[in-house]
Amino acid sequence: MAILCVGSVALDSVETPFGKADRVLGGSAVFFTAAATFFSPVRMVGVVGDDYPRGELAFLAERGADLSGIETRAGESFFWAGRYHFDLNIRDTLETRLGVFGDFRPRIPEAFRDSRYVFLGNIDPRLQHEVLDHVDRPEVVACDTMNYWIEGNRKELLALLERVDILLVNDAEARQLADEPNLLKAARWIRDRGPKIVVVKKGEHGASLFADGWVFFVPGYPLETAFDPTGAGDAFAGGFMGYVAQADTLAVEDLRRAMVYGSVMGSFAVEDFSVDRFKRLEAADIDGRVREFREMTAFEAHVRGLRV
Amino acid sequence: MAILCVGSVALDSVETPFGKADRVLGGSAVFFTAAATFFSPVRMVGVVGDDYPRGELAFLAERGADLSGIETRAGESFFWAGRYHFDLNIRDTLETRLGVFGDFRPRIPEAFRDSRYVFLGNIDPRLQHEVLDHVDRPEVVACDTMNYWIEGNRKELLALLERVDILLVNDAEARQLADEPNLLKAARWIRDRGPKIVVVKKGEHGASLFADGWVFFVPGYPLETAFDPTGAGDAFAGGFMGYVAQADTLAVEDLRRAMVYGSVMGSFAVEDFSVDRFKRLEAADIDGRVREFREMTAFEAHVRGLRV
Repeated sequence: MAILCVGSVALDSVETPFGKADRVLGGSAVFFTAAATFFSPVRMVGVVGDDYPRGELAFLAERGADLSGIETRAGESFFWAGRYHFDLNIRDTLETRLGVFGDFRPRIPEAFRDSRYVFLGNIDPRLQHEVLDHVDRPEVVACDTMNYWIEGNRKELLALLERVDILLVNDAEARQLADEPNLLKAARWIRDRGPKIVVVKKGEHGASLFADGWVFFVPGYPLETAFDPTGAGDAFAGGFMGYVAQADTLAVEDLRRAMVYGSVMGSFAVEDFSVDRFKRLEAADIDGRVREFREMTAFEAHVRGLRV
Repeated sequence: MAILCVGSVALDSVETPFGKADRVLGGSAVFFTAAATFFSPVRMVGVVGDDYPRGELAFLAERGADLSGIETRAGESFFWAGRYHFDLNIRDTLETRLGVFGDFRPRIPEAFRDSRYVFLGNIDPRLQHEVLDHVDRPEVVACDTMNYWIEGNRKELLALLERVDILLVNDAEARQLADEPNLLKAARWIRDRGPKIVVVKKGEHGASLFADGWVFFVPGYPLETAFDPTGAGDAFAGGFMGYVAQADTLAVEDLRRAMVYGSVMGSFAVEDFSVDRFKRLEAADIDGRVREFREMTAFEAHVRGLRV
């Protein structure tokens, strides 16, 4: 099943202790699509300025992304510059210029309106509402958001949640949204407001899925070559939703596998700047890492008795 | 197999958003033993002041702890007072009085010298050395430590590591010890200095085991009723080592299960003040939680093909 993905298409300048990349492909929709297209076709909706190197997105088209929803407008593309510390969990934003993304109004091409799977990247909840208004019968709507909207657009965000099946946020966002430090309670609070499934991303600590009466946990892949964490959360969402749309079901066993594919794709994102790792990624790499996740987490039931 | 456990036997006064407990049983050796005795007998070595309610340790003796190595000396017992915030990950230490623990010199009773499993709780590395000097043929030595010793007694600690098989520390301690933010590299650095196995405890984020060519990961149990986190790390160590000593092997499959039992026992520690949860814990509770951990982490191998 094709996934309609709406989000940022950006240029990033990134410094890490290991190197530097200048004005490279970035943005939530780009990372999402780079990961998701290993599983499902993606229909991208976004906006870039006339400075954007659109040709560099060709590798996504070759893998089944439909780029016809990415509008080019006069002006500058969304630009983000950041610097990571030796401890990659800490980063400084050096510059953010919204450019044409500042007054982005998603236009859903006619051919995208029959999309049954929708991923609403982290944009203004009012625009996320508009996207859903222009899809005929969305069956599975997944959504990301951030502290900026939780603080500034809470009312619209809560109304949006009623239309969302899967919320994917990081742990700080989940806690902030529910105003509740306990993650289990926070997830229940969110689930009471619409999303049947809450996926909480925790960076190197992995991710948790909270659903009706069950919880699933996947660790972060222990990377020795962590290089650039930018986009890892979006790549996680891409792996997760890509697999879900391919399976075309929200069955428990498939959601579990989707979590593993999410963590797998997030781990690849971190291995190089921008989406570069995905350009040379092969099915065998993905399968191999899934097997490693199994090795990292599987244990046999108890074979001995307790003393008491 | 009985485990020789050397560590603090303390009194804690704890405030959490959910209640208050005054001068209750605490200390690394007490939490360790409360968890470990569900799997293996424990021989405790420690010191208390003449103010200590030794009678309250009787439940440990009933479950197979030998308390004969706990010396009573004139003076005050080790006392710690702390207050947890609404976010239980944050705590303030209100008071620490070392009392008779300040010049503790572990005395290993003659009957304990044949111990093959040893757990060195978080005390001065010089004392941890002395303990090992007084055990005939320790086969599996596990050790905990903390930032205080990593900073102040680094040389003795590094020498100690050469005599240690399993180091159990939290993630900040592992990074500090190796001066390396990447946990995989930090664990390798530590393993190069002695311990074949490094267990990194990450609180609510679970724990990772690093060994020769393999890694295992166990999540933290998602507790809605997190009540008092004091001692959870020591209870983890107790569940882990208790199981290892019962299995009497460091086989891969048993180390994996030991990680699960560690996380299970850590999760129970958090459900009440002090070691109170362990007083009413039953085998069925432990088995049930192990099954929950399996449910939280198990996934079936892939059944669909990738698109690329």
